[in-house]
Amino acid sequence: MKAKELFGEIRNDLVLVEKELKKIANLPEEKLLSETSGHLLNAGGKRLRPAFALLAGKTFQYDLEKLLPLAVALELIHMATLVHDDVVDASVTRRGIPTVKAKWGNQVSVYTGDFIFGQSLIQIARCNNKKIAEILADVSVKMSEGEIVQLRTTFDPKQSLRDYLFRIKRKTALLISASCELGALAAGAPENFVRALRWYGYYLGMAFQITDDILDLIAEEKELGKPVGSDLRQGVVTLPVIFALQKSPRKEWLAEVVGKPDKKEGEVLEAIDEIKKCGAIEYSFGVSQRYLIKAKQRLEILPESNAKKSLALIADFINIRTY
Amino acid sequence: MKAKELFGEIRNDLVLVEKELKKIANLPEEKLLSETSGHLLNAGGKRLRPAFALLAGKTFQYDLEKLLPLAVALELIHMATLVHDDVVDASVTRRGIPTVKAKWGNQVSVYTGDFIFGQSLIQIARCNNKKIAEILADVSVKMSEGEIVQLRTTFDPKQSLRDYLFRIKRKTALLISASCELGALAAGAPENFVRALRWYGYYLGMAFQITDDILDLIAEEKELGKPVGSDLRQGVVTLPVIFALQKSPRKEWLAEVVGKPDKKEGEVLEAIDEIKKCGAIEYSFGVSQRYLIKAKQRLEILPESNAKKSLALIADFINIRTY
Repeated sequence: MKAKELFGEIRNDLVLVEKELKKIANLPEEKLLSETSGHLLNAGGKRLRPAFALLAGKTFQYDLEKLLPLAVALELIHMATLVHDDVVDASVTRRGIPTVKAKWGNQVSVYTGDFIFGQSLIQIARCNNKKIAEILADVSVKMSEGEIVQLRTTFDPKQSLRDYLFRIKRKTALLISASCELGALAAGAPENFVRALRWYGYYLGMAFQITDDILDLIAEEKELGKPVGSDLRQGVVTLPVIFALQKSPRKEWLAEVVGKPDKKEGEVLEAIDEIKKCGAIEYSFGVSQRYLIKAKQRLEILPESNAKKSLALIADFINIRTY
Repeated sequence: MKAKELFGEIRNDLVLVEKELKKIANLPEEKLLSETSGHLLNAGGKRLRPAFALLAGKTFQYDLEKLLPLAVALELIHMATLVHDDVVDASVTRRGIPTVKAKWGNQVSVYTGDFIFGQSLIQIARCNNKKIAEILADVSVKMSEGEIVQLRTTFDPKQSLRDYLFRIKRKTALLISASCELGALAAGAPENFVRALRWYGYYLGMAFQITDDILDLIAEEKELGKPVGSDLRQGVVTLPVIFALQKSPRKEWLAEVVGKPDKKEGEVLEAIDEIKKCGAIEYSFGVSQRYLIKAKQRLEILPESNAKKSLALIADFINIRTY
């Protein structure tokens, strides 16, 4: 089963989301800004957040006119955070595919992100729904909190499971949760369905990020589009690493490597090996799996529909994807 | 006459704005974020945008409950742009008082800005007014456009008056214009009053930025809080410079200095001298003055009130302030 088949139900509407994103990238009269926005918005991507909003809407009465600005806003918020993630300090280097920062510099990344975020606000205003505006404002605030915590804890091996869950909730789960919740809300679903989809999105988002963090250690470079162990190199301490720092027979050595901003290539590969050997990957998949079970349980109260089936399949798919 | 006397009419309400800003800085559980936000939000400042919104509201039926979240949102948007302005690329150096960037680095500046901007969205959602959300979304987009244009044209001596006006409109005038317009709108003023205040704010904002750009060349370092000629050093080409690049007998030499990223201290001072000698300051004051006259004309249709008098006095004050 391929990822895109999960979204068969809403394929045509995702094409409309794509069109809107292209339009926005073409808006700026300023050439530099339309280049940077185009670079971001035309680069494709899974459009996961719009897909969740649309599917959540389809579990109830689907009104594309109401859902489209929401779906576009969600993707724009996500894209804006991606481009702000590109901003670096002089001491930090980045590898992998060219980012806006790599091509144009920090300042351009900041304002391109601000521009795209501003465009999301235009879409949110279009929704004309106080609750949508409130929830997305709250998520935006919490996402930036998560980013600051991630910065503060970079290269810090003394992190607990709780610290990690706090971070990925803000970094990933809250926006996916809001996508599901607001898709249902915009479709006029009753409060208990809206709540169920909010929780589904939250659990699924947590599992999604945990799986991402696992794949960063075990996937092939060509699948990831970046070198294996990027998080480790950049000092982002993820779930498998936290487990290994507690359980590995070489935990002292591992803590030293994790805390080192300039790791040797050999050290990175050896650390990944240690992390794998102590069972951290299996443990992390287990944590992710438990979130996915909870996610699917939340769907139970929803009436039967193809959209509901797709949402359940997505939960099955998260843990077996290889990219 | 002192600046703060202009705001006598709304002094008590500005205290409430201040309180709300302090509250927001104290919100984050994350210590680093409450430090950076506090550094910004507790640093004082003229609170010009809240003041305009409150005064504009007072020209009609004043309802502080409706105006307060708007006033707070306006200041937060302004503060967020200030902290994003702190993000620099490795090649650029900054002088003057410590900024968030200087103390904490680029990445912290980005996310602190995002956090504060997110807080403005919470306030905007509280306003529960589609028009307010739309206008502020539009202004946010245009402000980031202006910033990108400013980046692209840094150190470029081949800029026209039109380029300059395009930039300062986005950088400064639109948010001040929105402050006046939305203050009136939130107070339920009729469409023609709202429009009058929008234009008043626009013209006043243009004059405000032009005066700022003049003061950067002629004020004392201790009044500015930064070295004289900061814009020139950083490559921001302002109105007096554009005039001098056309009229100075040494315009070729001046163009060379303006275009040079690494200017010697002596060159900067000599360039300022040339700019002053060719009448660029008088010319720029003249342009500003014409905007201020237009601003005051727009007030004419408003019913008499103390708030209206204050707005007119502010227009008189812009050109004679010394900081």
